Amino acid sequence: MATAERLLLLLLLLAASVAWETNAHTPTVIRQQQDGEAVAPPPLIHALRPRLGSGGQLAARAGGVACDSWRLGVEAHNVIGWRTVPAECGGYVGHYMLGGAYRRDSAVVVDEAVAYAESLRVAGDGKAIWVFDIDETSLSNLPYCAKHGFGYDFHKFPTCYAVQQHKLPRIRGGRERASVAGDKAPVPAAAGARCQAMFLTGRTEDQRAITVANLRRQGYTGWEKLLLKPAAHVAGGLQLSAVAYKSGERQKLQDAGFVIVGNIGDQWSDILGAPEDARTFKLPDPMYYIG
Amino acid sequence: MATAERLLLLLLLLAASVAWETNAHTPTVIRQQQDGEAVAPPPLIHALRPRLGSGGQLAARAGGVACDSWRLGVEAHNVIGWRTVPAECGGYVGHYMLGGAYRRDSAVVVDEAVAYAESLRVAGDGKAIWVFDIDETSLSNLPYCAKHGFGYDFHKFPTCYAVQQHKLPRIRGGRERASVAGDKAPVPAAAGARCQAMFLTGRTEDQRAITVANLRRQGYTGWEKLLLKPAAHVAGGLQLSAVAYKSGERQKLQDAGFVIVGNIGDQWSDILGAPEDARTFKLPDPMYYIG
Repeated sequence: MATAERLLLLLLLLAASVAWETNAHTPTVIRQQQDGEAVAPPPLIHALRPRLGSGGQLAARAGGVACDSWRLGVEAHNVIGWRTVPAECGGYVGHYMLGGAYRRDSAVVVDEAVAYAESLRVAGDGKAIWVFDIDETSLSNLPYCAKHGFGYDFHKFPTCYAVQQHKLPRIRGGRERASVAGDKAPVPAAAGARCQAMFLTGRTEDQRAITVANLRRQGYTGWEKLLLKPAAHVAGGLQLSAVAYKSGERQKLQDAGFVIVGNIGDQWSDILGAPEDARTFKLPDPMYYIG
Repeated sequence: MATAERLLLLLLLLAASVAWETNAHTPTVIRQQQDGEAVAPPPLIHALRPRLGSGGQLAARAGGVACDSWRLGVEAHNVIGWRTVPAECGGYVGHYMLGGAYRRDSAVVVDEAVAYAESLRVAGDGKAIWVFDIDETSLSNLPYCAKHGFGYDFHKFPTCYAVQQHKLPRIRGGRERASVAGDKAPVPAAAGARCQAMFLTGRTEDQRAITVANLRRQGYTGWEKLLLKPAAHVAGGLQLSAVAYKSGERQKLQDAGFVIVGNIGDQWSDILGAPEDARTFKLPDPMYYIG
């Protein structure tokens, strides 16, 4: 594989690493909001203490739940169908997300994805695609979650997912310009782009405009497809499970001749179900569950 | 579901919890072996310090590898195809396995499995089965691993898996009698046993006798099937992947009219591949990888 295509794949994957770069800046952002707006403080459960580190507290056991074991259970798809972070683990999850652990854990996943991408030999027919989930994969809702706490019922209350998406923060830091998923600009036109980026998300069609804005604002351009859930899936009572919906969409892509060389998401429902992709990557997410 | 069947399901699952009960006794066992046999000490990397706890050291980062993140990567099927525990993580894995973390993490998985089993409504036609892996699921090789270290090449050297299986320790503790997988004795004959236990293992047919002995010694009786890999798979050069082998065997079971209501193992290759089971459970295992 030529360096140009390698670069594209690398960029596709590096994009996934953007999300947690936000973490380092979250506290500052939140504090600025407080100072500037002088509003009644939201339930700031963790925002002011993410720097405390998470070493000792990551293994906290409270109320009978070993929070680190619960989190592992979530990540390995043993603990499923949960509506809330266990009440006694709200603080733990906050420290996990806002301390260094989430970033470290995510970095290992992306390192594996990049190494895999670099090893790929992709046919130059434009049919090779990499499927990216959006929330908590390509974009981070962490600042919103940090502001509102980590222990509420995701299904019941305004949540960190699919809410205030226009407030998703810009990514700061040196990677801001470099981490452009699907942006063909760095790839010489002569080499062509053999591997396409496709976004497949549980966000619905009515959120297309804001989603495109979110993605562009973070520097994502040049994606092949942005697949959002048809409104009928929600309004019409046709409430497919996320696994059924996403695997169905992957099947359509495959039927259309695309070859899914990789798939990355933060939920097992991004990954499970036929067609099984060549290689899948599960980013950590102990904040909410989508089945 | 009558209490009797519930009990059987519970017992099937409790059996899976037997393995890590060994941990608590491992240090003593090993020390006794040393004292009693007075042999040249094997490379006892961790056996003498499992009680040190694993709090601070579980987040150890050495040589560029965040060992906790590496382990999470393994458990969430991001880090695959590895032949050895990263050299700098041998100590970490030892502490994880011999300290309390492995037991806590496993307990969460089994708790989920038991809760799921209790929620099942199983048809009384004798076709419902639960698939159990053997090594690191129904039986523990941890004492062997603890003796020989956690950082070697599993494929190259004598390993903790499928070696010295006759030395698998008896399980001690109060559960010894109660945790009988598939043992119909506690279930009133009138109720019948609606859910059968099947063992599906990568151990080969030539290991049947020792495997049966291993299982019986731990109190397992009354299983419906013990599926071992045909010798041809190994000797004949037909080296199927574990995923292909195990999913193929599950397909045969399904074709024969069985309904797999649950599946538990320590490797993703115990779980992945069609037919996808109603519910699967992945026990932790950062000691070795089988793909």
